[in-house]
Amino acid sequence: MAKLQYQCTMSLDGFIAGPDGDMSWLADHLGPNPTVDEIMEQTGALLVGNNTFGGDDPYKGTEHQGEPYGGGWDGPQFVVTHHVPADQGPGVTFLDDLGAAISAAKAAVGDKYVGVLGASIARQCLEAGELDEIFVSVAPVLLGDGIRLFDHPGGRNVRLETMRVAEVPSATNIQLRVVR
Amino acid sequence: MAKLQYQCTMSLDGFIAGPDGDMSWLADHLGPNPTVDEIMEQTGALLVGNNTFGGDDPYKGTEHQGEPYGGGWDGPQFVVTHHVPADQGPGVTFLDDLGAAISAAKAAVGDKYVGVLGASIARQCLEAGELDEIFVSVAPVLLGDGIRLFDHPGGRNVRLETMRVAEVPSATNIQLRVVR
Repeated sequence: MAKLQYQCTMSLDGFIAGPDGDMSWLADHLGPNPTVDEIMEQTGALLVGNNTFGGDDPYKGTEHQGEPYGGGWDGPQFVVTHHVPADQGPGVTFLDDLGAAISAAKAAVGDKYVGVLGASIARQCLEAGELDEIFVSVAPVLLGDGIRLFDHPGGRNVRLETMRVAEVPSATNIQLRVVR
Repeated sequence: MAKLQYQCTMSLDGFIAGPDGDMSWLADHLGPNPTVDEIMEQTGALLVGNNTFGGDDPYKGTEHQGEPYGGGWDGPQFVVTHHVPADQGPGVTFLDDLGAAISAAKAAVGDKYVGVLGASIARQCLEAGELDEIFVSVAPVLLGDGIRLFDHPGGRNVRLETMRVAEVPSATNIQLRVVR
């Protein structure tokens, strides 16, 4: 069964991007990560927020700009946006409905993961009861401000269950299940 | 040599307390944690922010209210406050100067750790170049709002170095060095 997995690199203090979506800090933490390689192999499609697709690209300014996982991953992407462009582009499907995007992405992966990229879309999937897992590579850095892993003004208490922890020199990888 | 170590339990999304300092979420994550037991043994004194000392007590309403680590730890506490009370209380020293409090706490521990409790005081120690380590038990929960591990409006890039990662059923413990 296809599963939705929120995938990201996060600072120790819970930010997936700095202020204004800045990703320059990530350059210091892009070492080999076999656990991420494995996750990429298990990922059949991406469900991507429009900000993440167009904006907060950690590979901005490099030859891999705009390529998911810096060119290390290849497959269909489903981008949720209020403004569906006329030209859909190769391998990229723009949709203005989250439910339709989730269905299309799930249909594309068989029993692999749909990788969810972007804090806002991940939160929407969670609120819709559609998020199955979170895979986070915790980088050894404090950012102090920016885009948080999970932003819910007023607070929530979303219980998770740790599936595995894998330490590599550049990060501590934590994979968790959303408890329903 | 005495070292300052910021010690806390944190949600996966980077909060050490919920909105208004709420700590009720922690009750679900207080299982045995041998790594924390070890850290407590290595800790000779506590440097505590006034909010944390008086307010955000995870053991509020229990028989261990006001006792650091829920009564599991015993030793001198140094509380930094703008309003030093006339009555200092047993084992607790109130000081209105951070530098003086750090010196007093370090003098009390020999070569053990000074455990730093509270986000605001930990940030002040960091900004003063006095914070040596961070020990964080990451609990499998999302809170979405509250008091963050590290709050620095406008952002920072504080490099850390992972010393060790230890997984227990209730948490993922991460110990890191502040890179200077």
